[in-house]
Amino acid sequence: MCIAITMGDSSGVGPEIVLKAFAQGELPDDFIVIGDASILQICNQQLGYGVPLQTIRNVAERQPDVLNIYDLALLTPDDLCIGKVSQKSGQAALAYVERATRLALAKEVSAIVTLPINKEATRLTAPNFSGHTEFIAELCGEENYTMMLASEQLIVTHVSTHISLRQALEQVTTEKVLNIIRLTHDAVAKLRPRNKIAVAGLNPHAGENGSFGMEDLTQIKPAIEAARAEGIDANGPFPPDTIFFQTVKGKAYDAVVCMYHDQGHIPMKLLDFEGGINVTLGLPIIRTSVDHGTAFDIAWQGKAFTRSLKEACALAVKLVK
Amino acid sequence: MCIAITMGDSSGVGPEIVLKAFAQGELPDDFIVIGDASILQICNQQLGYGVPLQTIRNVAERQPDVLNIYDLALLTPDDLCIGKVSQKSGQAALAYVERATRLALAKEVSAIVTLPINKEATRLTAPNFSGHTEFIAELCGEENYTMMLASEQLIVTHVSTHISLRQALEQVTTEKVLNIIRLTHDAVAKLRPRNKIAVAGLNPHAGENGSFGMEDLTQIKPAIEAARAEGIDANGPFPPDTIFFQTVKGKAYDAVVCMYHDQGHIPMKLLDFEGGINVTLGLPIIRTSVDHGTAFDIAWQGKAFTRSLKEACALAVKLVK
Repeated sequence: MCIAITMGDSSGVGPEIVLKAFAQGELPDDFIVIGDASILQICNQQLGYGVPLQTIRNVAERQPDVLNIYDLALLTPDDLCIGKVSQKSGQAALAYVERATRLALAKEVSAIVTLPINKEATRLTAPNFSGHTEFIAELCGEENYTMMLASEQLIVTHVSTHISLRQALEQVTTEKVLNIIRLTHDAVAKLRPRNKIAVAGLNPHAGENGSFGMEDLTQIKPAIEAARAEGIDANGPFPPDTIFFQTVKGKAYDAVVCMYHDQGHIPMKLLDFEGGINVTLGLPIIRTSVDHGTAFDIAWQGKAFTRSLKEACALAVKLVK
Repeated sequence: MCIAITMGDSSGVGPEIVLKAFAQGELPDDFIVIGDASILQICNQQLGYGVPLQTIRNVAERQPDVLNIYDLALLTPDDLCIGKVSQKSGQAALAYVERATRLALAKEVSAIVTLPINKEATRLTAPNFSGHTEFIAELCGEENYTMMLASEQLIVTHVSTHISLRQALEQVTTEKVLNIIRLTHDAVAKLRPRNKIAVAGLNPHAGENGSFGMEDLTQIKPAIEAARAEGIDANGPFPPDTIFFQTVKGKAYDAVVCMYHDQGHIPMKLLDFEGGINVTLGLPIIRTSVDHGTAFDIAWQGKAFTRSLKEACALAVKLVK
């Protein structure tokens, strides 16, 4: 089992995080970093991590006890501009993700774990880029996927992610909600001993029986019923403002299916700003990610935390098994 | 300064909470309960609180050191159906609120504090009833108001409350957002030493510069600029999934103006399920409320907590001063 970790945008905290995590023994036994060797060498030296680095050009060349860099050689030391948006760096970061995805599709690696890219930088080359999740799903040719955020306290999945709230409303259909319930059920089965799924409503108080919006009754409820008919322990729709408390403090459910990006992201980031892990469900490959950004303001200062990478790798390993 | 506390639905936890809070010395020096004396007498006896009760027919009759009941005499002991939806009880609960509001408008009382009513019960008489907040605002003839939720950790206000999410999107206009920022600023000035206001975006990541929805740029940003021009320290629009963490853990802001019901309610109820206080801003009267429901499942068992009523009263006193 080889895990491919993408280095992320070289201007941000990605390079130092993977080096520091390796130095601290937090990474899986078998992994490679897909990125630029010259950048990792400078970072390793500049921050004094002393990590043994090995440059490889294919997965089979990897060695034990060193940090194997699958080197795409897209950047030179001159391209480095720490803490700044760079077209070249943004383009390279996307190339690492594309290569990792293709290696996973070809089964040369078992899973991919992504470090952060900077959207602004990446969009200088790929103007329509909306996020890792959407980009990887498109490479996989998959339209039925969902972003799961997981921490010790809470697991949430989303009917939609990086679209306007107005467009998100249109995604709340019985078919889509049912699909996300199924994906959630399959993932929770691998992660938790119990598999009790809560489904949040869309409207305030889940619409109060149609008083404030009909989608909870006409779209979400039938999806829950269909899921239950398939043997899934799906419940709801619940008032969005109370279901997270019940799930987290009351331990009443193991995951919450959310109707739009912020419905799931607000409670998740409030509870565990640093420790959340992002998993894309529904793809033919396994992909997890740290749940933080490039943090340009503290890049290359050795301050960035490694917990999210450590947990994203551990979760990838768990999902592979 | 006399505070009027409405008894709430007799089938729920309202009656016992006001008696228990009085017995525990948690209520303001000068207050009356607007409700039904016969119900409070039964509750006082049944749960053994031993509170000295005094029935009054106008505010001036109130006595010190007793619980003064402004008795509307709408219910008889036979009407009592604990833990059940009752048309008579729902109708009476609404009448207490109406009387309290009229007494406040007439300046016979300085503020009102409401205990929970059951919407289902109230709708058997008033089918279009959507909530205390909307009902009181209508009695006051006021359209520019907002629901504020306040706890020690967080203060949120809302551009809209009990309408569908689809309708809520239409409320996000520069004029409305500016008005809510102003109301928030005025309230925080009375409650906190600092007055730094965060304004949440509407779309994921506050739209990422128009990538996922335009309202953050076209409606919310101009409202923030207009507020700043008036001298209000308004900031944003911020990504909705990170601003609550920054406000609560980072203490970066004193209140968050939210674009719809669940944007503000999800973080508030996750942080402090019991202790939140609900305040209606923008009315000619002062009104606070407990932030919980009738809790029919534990009604009249003496289990209901009094903290929310205690804090709602304390906040009302603070706002009067």
